[in-house]
Amino acid sequence: MNIESLSHENGGPFTRAWGWLKALPEKLWAKAVDVAKKMKKLGEDDPRRIIHSLKVGLALTLVSLFNYIRPLYDGFGDNAIWAVLTVTLVLEFSVGATLGKGLNRMLATLSGGALGVGVHYLATLFGETGQPIVIGFFVFMIAATVTFVRFIPAMKARYDYGLLIFILTFCLISISSYREDDVIEMAHQRLTTIIIGSFVAIVICICICPVWIGENLHNRAVTNMEKLGNFLEGFGSEYFDIPEEGLSNMDDKSFLQGYKSVLTSKDTEETMANLARWELWNCRFGFRHPWKQYLKIGALSRECAYKVDVLNSYLNSKIQTPSEFQSKIQEPCTTICSESGKALKEIALELKKMTQTTSVNPHILNSKMAAENLKSLLNTTWLCENANLEETIPTAAVVLIVMDIVPYIEKISEALQELALLARFKWVDARVSP
Amino acid sequence: MNIESLSHENGGPFTRAWGWLKALPEKLWAKAVDVAKKMKKLGEDDPRRIIHSLKVGLALTLVSLFNYIRPLYDGFGDNAIWAVLTVTLVLEFSVGATLGKGLNRMLATLSGGALGVGVHYLATLFGETGQPIVIGFFVFMIAATVTFVRFIPAMKARYDYGLLIFILTFCLISISSYREDDVIEMAHQRLTTIIIGSFVAIVICICICPVWIGENLHNRAVTNMEKLGNFLEGFGSEYFDIPEEGLSNMDDKSFLQGYKSVLTSKDTEETMANLARWELWNCRFGFRHPWKQYLKIGALSRECAYKVDVLNSYLNSKIQTPSEFQSKIQEPCTTICSESGKALKEIALELKKMTQTTSVNPHILNSKMAAENLKSLLNTTWLCENANLEETIPTAAVVLIVMDIVPYIEKISEALQELALLARFKWVDARVSP
Repeated sequence: MNIESLSHENGGPFTRAWGWLKALPEKLWAKAVDVAKKMKKLGEDDPRRIIHSLKVGLALTLVSLFNYIRPLYDGFGDNAIWAVLTVTLVLEFSVGATLGKGLNRMLATLSGGALGVGVHYLATLFGETGQPIVIGFFVFMIAATVTFVRFIPAMKARYDYGLLIFILTFCLISISSYREDDVIEMAHQRLTTIIIGSFVAIVICICICPVWIGENLHNRAVTNMEKLGNFLEGFGSEYFDIPEEGLSNMDDKSFLQGYKSVLTSKDTEETMANLARWELWNCRFGFRHPWKQYLKIGALSRECAYKVDVLNSYLNSKIQTPSEFQSKIQEPCTTICSESGKALKEIALELKKMTQTTSVNPHILNSKMAAENLKSLLNTTWLCENANLEETIPTAAVVLIVMDIVPYIEKISEALQELALLARFKWVDARVSP
Repeated sequence: MNIESLSHENGGPFTRAWGWLKALPEKLWAKAVDVAKKMKKLGEDDPRRIIHSLKVGLALTLVSLFNYIRPLYDGFGDNAIWAVLTVTLVLEFSVGATLGKGLNRMLATLSGGALGVGVHYLATLFGETGQPIVIGFFVFMIAATVTFVRFIPAMKARYDYGLLIFILTFCLISISSYREDDVIEMAHQRLTTIIIGSFVAIVICICICPVWIGENLHNRAVTNMEKLGNFLEGFGSEYFDIPEEGLSNMDDKSFLQGYKSVLTSKDTEETMANLARWELWNCRFGFRHPWKQYLKIGALSRECAYKVDVLNSYLNSKIQTPSEFQSKIQEPCTTICSESGKALKEIALELKKMTQTTSVNPHILNSKMAAENLKSLLNTTWLCENANLEETIPTAAVVLIVMDIVPYIEKISEALQELALLARFKWVDARVSP
């Protein structure tokens, strides 16, 4: 009995370990299949990711030729490797990011290298012993100052990478100048290879299926407004439980959740606008597109989305059998929603096509008129019999928020008009367009 | 007349240019003073920025000694410069970011270097001509694959820098192996210098006034809840225009705007939580603090802030002379607000002190009871005479949103309890504590 239990105890962990080992290949395989599926989905969601990966491979293979081809290698020697390094670090997914990093890197290498050479010559005046002390002093001072400058928000937004590379190049040149004979030659070679690397990265990024971050920002603004428009257009009939034509009410309700991504879009949009400013010229948006205006539109969309979020929370207490009050306000309230939604979708369409039309005005006018109607209706309505507050209050809150959204739609429309003026959108007569 | 106007025309631009040139030093001086003031403010706002800048300077000066001290230089040669490069790139403001980058860089250099050496030996089998082709093929394949892996969100969040350095090191080693005799020696030297650089950066970052990003995230969660609590606590008396004791009503209203920063905190908090996970051990939070729970609390705070934002928009239509309905609901509504606010501030205090108490429960209970009271009041109130809808509706909306906030406060309190359990906060008896 004892022996049996012992052997069982001994066998236990071993059997388990053996079982675990036997199951391991299967588990690993399942994991690998899982990862492969995820990667396939990533590629399918946005095929530009696959293209970008191939571009990086191509750029690195191209730039590695510097090392293989004799005359090129003889020109740069070991420094050729800096071109490889530059391509890896500079080639980013979007043109804006690549241009920003490339220009930052080139300028920072130039200025950092020049300062390094300058400090080297200054340090040689202090003799063999004084030289490292002088260089060390400058390294400390310049690294500390430039690191502090990186905290300035305006610098951080656009020149953070450049300031980092400035410190890097300055330190590399000034420190290694102590052991190197020909500092200028070294700095010159480094600058040339970095310029070559940056150019390879920029050319490949722009010439092969470029991803313009400005275009992404533009499309994002369009989609955000479409999402808000979809919600508002559908909200009225959803809240008052009006069956829509051609649509079963239990059908796809995803339009009610789409706005959620608008709520938290601030940081992403700011990063995108900062990068888009590097795309000085773009075949679709022309020279110096007013990207800042997109941030204004984005902020207004977010304000609108906060209100939509509260509206969404009232969908849980939908109206089943409308009271007298509810049936009274149902029509103007639904009109405000659908007209505001249509207005937002018109604005989105205008922005998408980059045209100026007047087609949004009737919708805004309609929603404003409906809001006025509702207001005077409320002014003259005196709740008397059967007006239970518990039923009335949620509807009242919805009404108020819906009425509150109208001025935001107008503000968004105005912000778009400003953008259209600044970016010189084409003027299309709404009456002529189909 | 003609000559005069000509001379005037000629003189015009010159005079203007001269004027501009004369004003230039003054302008530059004004600009410099402006920048200096901004930098002074940056330093005063957060003196840790100044300390970080000095730390970078110190680390670079220290690591440059490798180049000056003969025996150290003889050990590493030109590769010593990689230590400088590593310190510049790895030493970040917070411990989490520095540790993350340092570990990523060391592991990526090790694995990338090993793979590079492997590919080098494989390529030598193909002879002088075949070698560059084989290396080129591998460079292309591996760079493209790893670049694609960088798009996987889970990898991007924690290992983005490592994957980049992996590509970099692999390319540098495999490409330069073609011209180098002793590849293993080169890879080994590079790895050693990068480990030294990373260690210098990590040690300086942790030992001299460390900035723990986890602590920042923790404090941020505390402040966000305090801000929401301040708003709610003050909202009731602000909306119903009740003069507060000891406070003139025209005084500082900044507490009404503080919540705005909570609205857009998502991306920042996620980045912070990702970095905080690298801070495996921290004297205040111990080993493996549950940072993910902070994101949950953050999301709930944001949901609460969206509602607060709508409440804030109703402050423009404050009540001057309360109607019958308004004076009826004023008391329970103000109670909900102030008790919710107090509850949030208690939660913030608990989180700040990292203790578990029951002191928040009475406030939550009070606010829930007040909400129940309000509900039954609404249930039994029938608006009859003098109940003008235009006046009633905004108040009704406010009431509803205020009632809606109560469950969120409860959810936040539950999320904090979960965090307290996971992180083993100390238990403090509320009755004993002063």
